[in-house]
Amino acid sequence: MNSRLRNAHCQLRERNLDGFLVSLPANISYLTDASSRDSYLLVSLKGNVYFTDSRYTEEAGAFLKGNARLKECNGFVFGRIAEEILKLKIKNVGFEERCLPFAEFASLNDFSRGKFKLIPVHGIVEDKRQVKDQGEILKIKKAVRIAASALRHIKKSLVCGMKELEVAAEIERFMRYQGARGAAFETIVAAGANSSQPHHIPGSKRIRSGEPVLIDFGADYQGYKSDLTRVLFLGKINVLVRKVYDIVLKAQELAIKRIGPGAEMAEIDRVAREYIASKGYGGCFTHNLGHGSGLEIHEAPYISGRESSAIRPGMVFTVEPGIYLPGKFGIRIEDMVLITNKGCEVISGSIDK
Amino acid sequence: MNSRLRNAHCQLRERNLDGFLVSLPANISYLTDASSRDSYLLVSLKGNVYFTDSRYTEEAGAFLKGNARLKECNGFVFGRIAEEILKLKIKNVGFEERCLPFAEFASLNDFSRGKFKLIPVHGIVEDKRQVKDQGEILKIKKAVRIAASALRHIKKSLVCGMKELEVAAEIERFMRYQGARGAAFETIVAAGANSSQPHHIPGSKRIRSGEPVLIDFGADYQGYKSDLTRVLFLGKINVLVRKVYDIVLKAQELAIKRIGPGAEMAEIDRVAREYIASKGYGGCFTHNLGHGSGLEIHEAPYISGRESSAIRPGMVFTVEPGIYLPGKFGIRIEDMVLITNKGCEVISGSIDK
Repeated sequence: MNSRLRNAHCQLRERNLDGFLVSLPANISYLTDASSRDSYLLVSLKGNVYFTDSRYTEEAGAFLKGNARLKECNGFVFGRIAEEILKLKIKNVGFEERCLPFAEFASLNDFSRGKFKLIPVHGIVEDKRQVKDQGEILKIKKAVRIAASALRHIKKSLVCGMKELEVAAEIERFMRYQGARGAAFETIVAAGANSSQPHHIPGSKRIRSGEPVLIDFGADYQGYKSDLTRVLFLGKINVLVRKVYDIVLKAQELAIKRIGPGAEMAEIDRVAREYIASKGYGGCFTHNLGHGSGLEIHEAPYISGRESSAIRPGMVFTVEPGIYLPGKFGIRIEDMVLITNKGCEVISGSIDK
Repeated sequence: MNSRLRNAHCQLRERNLDGFLVSLPANISYLTDASSRDSYLLVSLKGNVYFTDSRYTEEAGAFLKGNARLKECNGFVFGRIAEEILKLKIKNVGFEERCLPFAEFASLNDFSRGKFKLIPVHGIVEDKRQVKDQGEILKIKKAVRIAASALRHIKKSLVCGMKELEVAAEIERFMRYQGARGAAFETIVAAGANSSQPHHIPGSKRIRSGEPVLIDFGADYQGYKSDLTRVLFLGKINVLVRKVYDIVLKAQELAIKRIGPGAEMAEIDRVAREYIASKGYGGCFTHNLGHGSGLEIHEAPYISGRESSAIRPGMVFTVEPGIYLPGKFGIRIEDMVLITNKGCEVISGSIDK
């Protein structure tokens, strides 16, 4: 059994659980070190069981090895999970309360016939996933390198008249040719006034000279995600756009300077937010400063004004201040940092801003 | 207020609910006729309220019109939802039990302070979504046409030595140039032995002459999805592959012949399954025959041996029998049908098999 599962077993003991039903795909992928989909993993001190349907049994048979027993079930999965729990005589089963839908909880609870208890838990796997190991860091760095090369490619091929959708298409195509499984998330390309919507869906708008073109994108490399944002310009940059750009860039620099082990997450967010406010754009930075990224594009830690916990070495997260002026334009600059023992490494630092 | 929301109000009355919290993104998109993301929609006889965070308020302000009041909330969304429920004096609130995570249910329940009741429901919106209206059918047909042209494109450019990932990249790029928002789901390209895994993740395997190349893909056009599978060949087709291909094709033809209003879903599945079994491949068709497709790539109806309900005009679903021989190869042929008043229209019928 791998060390991640062994660690999960320790966590169960600490919480007086003898079983734990994992349903978040990223958590199952983490524990099995494979791209798990449409599956459930029962982690227990009496043996681990992996449930999936017949579409995936061939690949699961190959990657599970000694980590878990494979149980194929087509339909009625909660009946099968309950059967296994009863067979293994597990009494207290943790389940992922933020992931398991109410109906699945209710179904499993019905099947328990009072013989085991379901206990809502959170963070057993997510907390571990916040700190990346060497293998994970290498994959994230590769995902960043792929995204960086796609950006260089698109800078060369971007011309006036291209549609937002076409720019997204070229980026994603290029990343796959570099070995990415695909895009880490739906690529955002927002030209002109569309850039004031932080999560604009690329459409058929054509890029015109002088407009900012905000590109927020990333690669998925073996399940690990990168996440970057740059604003490109074709032609002359408008004075106001330039001014706002420089404010966002400075806010990011100030935040990154403050990042290191022990710093409070809320403090990092505050540094960028206060600088932007001091320049008169206080209400225009409308989201958190950043988020962790790894097997999920958005995962803990969340670099938000509400997070009082401290940054730890091995964490990887985005730093992405923005200023959005509805109807006019928006600027966001996003990089990824890896927390080291002394400070942080901007792993996307080689990419021009 | 649009007719879909008015219909939802009728459903509430029938179920003695005075409120309904919608959390499934596709259901919210359906009710608001927009690409809703990271949002919740409270439907109530006393007014509809749309909750989202500041990343989306600009676009939501534009598409909600008279359908719902917009409430921006950054964090603490369940507290805000509860506030609105209390303010509107709603007593019985349905929630989507298959979608709402246990923790969100528990949080909302805590905030209720006993002043409203949460009632698990399913299908209020999904049942309506099974039957597509004219506007939806046009979008799905466009999504099919885009996928069909991408397939023609890839047939022309496919050469030995290309990686699975590169084929996926070309298909997705091409579909966006045709106006697709993107791929309807992660494109599957499975060459040679990889094709025996129904949901293979494309990798760096290169395509060799004589191998079947299974391609399962679709386009997202304005939120509506197409879903098609074809098996392409470069070079000579192996005798066994040819034989299995013909069995799958015949199974599909027989199933499609049986499709029409009033036919039982399980029966359609059975027709294909029994034919495949009669040819000696009974255990090798390891998934359902098909599924509905629209705002979600997999949605009701499910064409499965367990579904006793009847097919209705306006439904759109896939017909995709397959035979998988682990370690050797797999064949799946997938088309989409639209149920008409008399029978069915194979909307992907123009694509060569």
